[in-house]
Amino acid sequence: MCGCDWPPDAPPRPRLPAQPDHAGLPVAANALPASALADLRAAIGADHVLTGDALAGRDADGWQVDRRGRYLGRAAAVLRPASTAEVAAVLRIAHAHRLPVVPQGGNTGLVGGSTPDGSGRELVLSLRRIDRIRAVDAANLTLTLEAGCILQTAQDIAAEQGLLLPLSLAAEGSCTIGGNLASNAGGVQVLRHGNARALCLGLEVVTPAGEVWDGLRGLRKDNTGYDLRDLYIGSEGTLGVITAAVLRLHPQPRSTATALARCASAEAAIALLQAALAGSGGALAAFEVMNAASIALVGKHLPQAVPADLPGDLDASQAWTVLLESADASDPDRAQATLEVVLAAAIDDGIVDTAWVAQSLSQSAAFWRLRESIPLAQARDGLNIKHDIALPTSRIPAFISQADAAVQALVPGARHIDFGHWGDGNLHYNVMAPEGVAPADFLARWEGPINTRIFDLLGSHGGTISAEHGIGRLKRDELARRHDPVALALMRRLKQALDPLGIMNPGRVLPM
Amino acid sequence: MCGCDWPPDAPPRPRLPAQPDHAGLPVAANALPASALADLRAAIGADHVLTGDALAGRDADGWQVDRRGRYLGRAAAVLRPASTAEVAAVLRIAHAHRLPVVPQGGNTGLVGGSTPDGSGRELVLSLRRIDRIRAVDAANLTLTLEAGCILQTAQDIAAEQGLLLPLSLAAEGSCTIGGNLASNAGGVQVLRHGNARALCLGLEVVTPAGEVWDGLRGLRKDNTGYDLRDLYIGSEGTLGVITAAVLRLHPQPRSTATALARCASAEAAIALLQAALAGSGGALAAFEVMNAASIALVGKHLPQAVPADLPGDLDASQAWTVLLESADASDPDRAQATLEVVLAAAIDDGIVDTAWVAQSLSQSAAFWRLRESIPLAQARDGLNIKHDIALPTSRIPAFISQADAAVQALVPGARHIDFGHWGDGNLHYNVMAPEGVAPADFLARWEGPINTRIFDLLGSHGGTISAEHGIGRLKRDELARRHDPVALALMRRLKQALDPLGIMNPGRVLPM
Repeated sequence: MCGCDWPPDAPPRPRLPAQPDHAGLPVAANALPASALADLRAAIGADHVLTGDALAGRDADGWQVDRRGRYLGRAAAVLRPASTAEVAAVLRIAHAHRLPVVPQGGNTGLVGGSTPDGSGRELVLSLRRIDRIRAVDAANLTLTLEAGCILQTAQDIAAEQGLLLPLSLAAEGSCTIGGNLASNAGGVQVLRHGNARALCLGLEVVTPAGEVWDGLRGLRKDNTGYDLRDLYIGSEGTLGVITAAVLRLHPQPRSTATALARCASAEAAIALLQAALAGSGGALAAFEVMNAASIALVGKHLPQAVPADLPGDLDASQAWTVLLESADASDPDRAQATLEVVLAAAIDDGIVDTAWVAQSLSQSAAFWRLRESIPLAQARDGLNIKHDIALPTSRIPAFISQADAAVQALVPGARHIDFGHWGDGNLHYNVMAPEGVAPADFLARWEGPINTRIFDLLGSHGGTISAEHGIGRLKRDELARRHDPVALALMRRLKQALDPLGIMNPGRVLPM
Repeated sequence: MCGCDWPPDAPPRPRLPAQPDHAGLPVAANALPASALADLRAAIGADHVLTGDALAGRDADGWQVDRRGRYLGRAAAVLRPASTAEVAAVLRIAHAHRLPVVPQGGNTGLVGGSTPDGSGRELVLSLRRIDRIRAVDAANLTLTLEAGCILQTAQDIAAEQGLLLPLSLAAEGSCTIGGNLASNAGGVQVLRHGNARALCLGLEVVTPAGEVWDGLRGLRKDNTGYDLRDLYIGSEGTLGVITAAVLRLHPQPRSTATALARCASAEAAIALLQAALAGSGGALAAFEVMNAASIALVGKHLPQAVPADLPGDLDASQAWTVLLESADASDPDRAQATLEVVLAAAIDDGIVDTAWVAQSLSQSAAFWRLRESIPLAQARDGLNIKHDIALPTSRIPAFISQADAAVQALVPGARHIDFGHWGDGNLHYNVMAPEGVAPADFLARWEGPINTRIFDLLGSHGGTISAEHGIGRLKRDELARRHDPVALALMRRLKQALDPLGIMNPGRVLPM
């Protein structure tokens, strides 16, 4: 996930439906066998096995509803083990009783992967108490920590060493490292440093049967058999439970610079991406694109978030605004010089019409504020149809042109709010109701048909229906319909091999 | 694999034992059922199913012996399909008849992973005819090609686009992309760009039952289920056959610079690595270390490979020489300036005693020649005990100190030839007989005990017994003895799930 769907000013907890005695949905009594309950209490302490009233009284922790309030469930119990050994004990009990287990970190995911369903049968396994820093090895540029660590805490620990943990996303104050790895989180630094997958050197994992794999290696080269690490990363808790990880750190950049550039077309924006990559090498740290409608929407709802000196032709229908960021490890002036050279050449080559390089930290912050205000401006305008998709960067212009035409053919006047991490090929291609049409009516009538067209087009351009948010419950059936059938069969075999009883996060990623 | 064990002046084909009528070991007749043979001939054409005399007459292609002549086998047949569909047909036949299949590219691996055993039962599946370039997408920085492509060909195609395929190793003129991916090859550009795994965005794979998984996606973000790609990469042909891949390219650097630096201790060399990473960020492209004995050995056997202006104290027992390379994408002078700044500061800080920054391409080439001459100098001096190992970089000095002491306790006077890609944590920690002791006698008596001590020490420092060469047959039993038992059990479950009949490269990586 990234900041694109995360409402920046939303309250930390969504409002729940009024229910007198519990936080989630109603549940039949006795969902958990008494012997299993007794075993769990013995294993991790009765205080950390929350059921019934105890669970209802802890609503504020939000175990049964995701942070956006889209998935409301009801757990048989919430389990809060304090160590890897306790996780293993919990899983041995769940395994023996064949109880479904939903691993959970900050529960900030966007696809229903870490929230219990409404059956009242699932055990929520919260990793939040398992949050120790196990080792800081600055000379190896690694940090070993437990799954329940908050991402921002991990960033702070790296910064104390003068180092950078380049995983950054809007939920970083509440999401956990375990959840980041289980969902292979993306964010705003992927262009330079890769997804969560690229930042992980080793894992500790508890299998569904309660075995502990100690793969906490801090090695950059290790060719000793199958790549278990990458199999668990991104598997969304359906194969086992990540309890600790070795993360790779990077030197802190000594300078960064930010610029906005205006391109007349999506093709020109992609040409600028190529030029910026070639001209700055590994120094290009961000390449975010916003269409004119996105900026106009910010201007409508959050006018203070549009930098004052941007020219007034922002809503010209063909204009695209690019936010570029460059970082340099060795030279305090170099990042800005790099951007200036790249942009001057791009203007000479007719790729860029106008550009502004931030001359101060506050200007740089203002440029980012424009980009980061789009989701909130959208939220203020009402519901819309969101797509977290990715394409080969070379295909983005053709895709947008064809997708726009397809949407207009279905719903003339529908508004296109296009923005995202184009440097990674990641688009947030969102569609809003035409002016004057009620958003809820628009979604009810058109979400299905529009998604079908968009997903069909993605298939023809080699794109993906989930770039960074994952599958969870939200896209499970779409994946089953659209993914390569051999890949799906292989995934089912892997699930069967590693979780033969099917107790790990059932119904997420793959159908039960 | 890298250049470290690859004899640069060895003949391309090793000399085989004199055998009148075939290239490999003797074999019992009728190893291949007649019906299977007929099916195979029908599927890919009789000309491409080589058995008996036909195979013997094709000795020069080296299907039955690895390039270093360490593994000499005998195949039931060599199969040379021309397309993915033909690979699938071959595997369906092998599956139906339960015949073992050994996928093979350039057969340049160092661990016996792609050479048939001596049973005469294994089918060699050569991918060499499947070598088309399927797509070049410069705007997406990707290259889609088939498994049999020679690495150097792929490098050349990238260069024609003004781009870089940063996978480079000594066998690049004869190894194939499929083999590089199946073994997760390393090489000399890992520090900046990662192993083969980091350069692959998508795969096409044929399963043991002959299904084709089309995962040829050119996406930098794709969270749609389990990471099948990374599971096949590095699995050494034991789970399926890679038939094509999407590789990620990088911009060509506009300048590179090379330097040699002398450090008084291994600790100082690691401090220099930290300083160079922090001071050059992503620009540090190589960090290779050579101990004094390595350079002295080059001086003894290849004196012209030692740069003339290096001072004469090279064999001081505590001196370590570091080769650093920096690359810059945007500025023709910048790479050299970066190294100069880093080295000047390191001299001021007492980390580096002396340093030379190459002032010309020929000086740069001379520095690399020194580093690359070590394996040949070793070969000229006689057999030695080799280790392709990796550690957290922070542990390298302590490991070397303890390993040296352990070896000297066993064999006083044993010579230590230590060099390698320390920037990746990858050491080639090699041990030679004491002066005056016959190398063959030394190996016969001491290889086992020395390996045991080295591998024990690696375990205590969080190191690995195979950094970049893989497991194959060479290290299979050591892996089974030393690897985490839960990891081994998980690997066996994956093997069983994806190759239930056990026909894919049996006995490699895991015991049969």
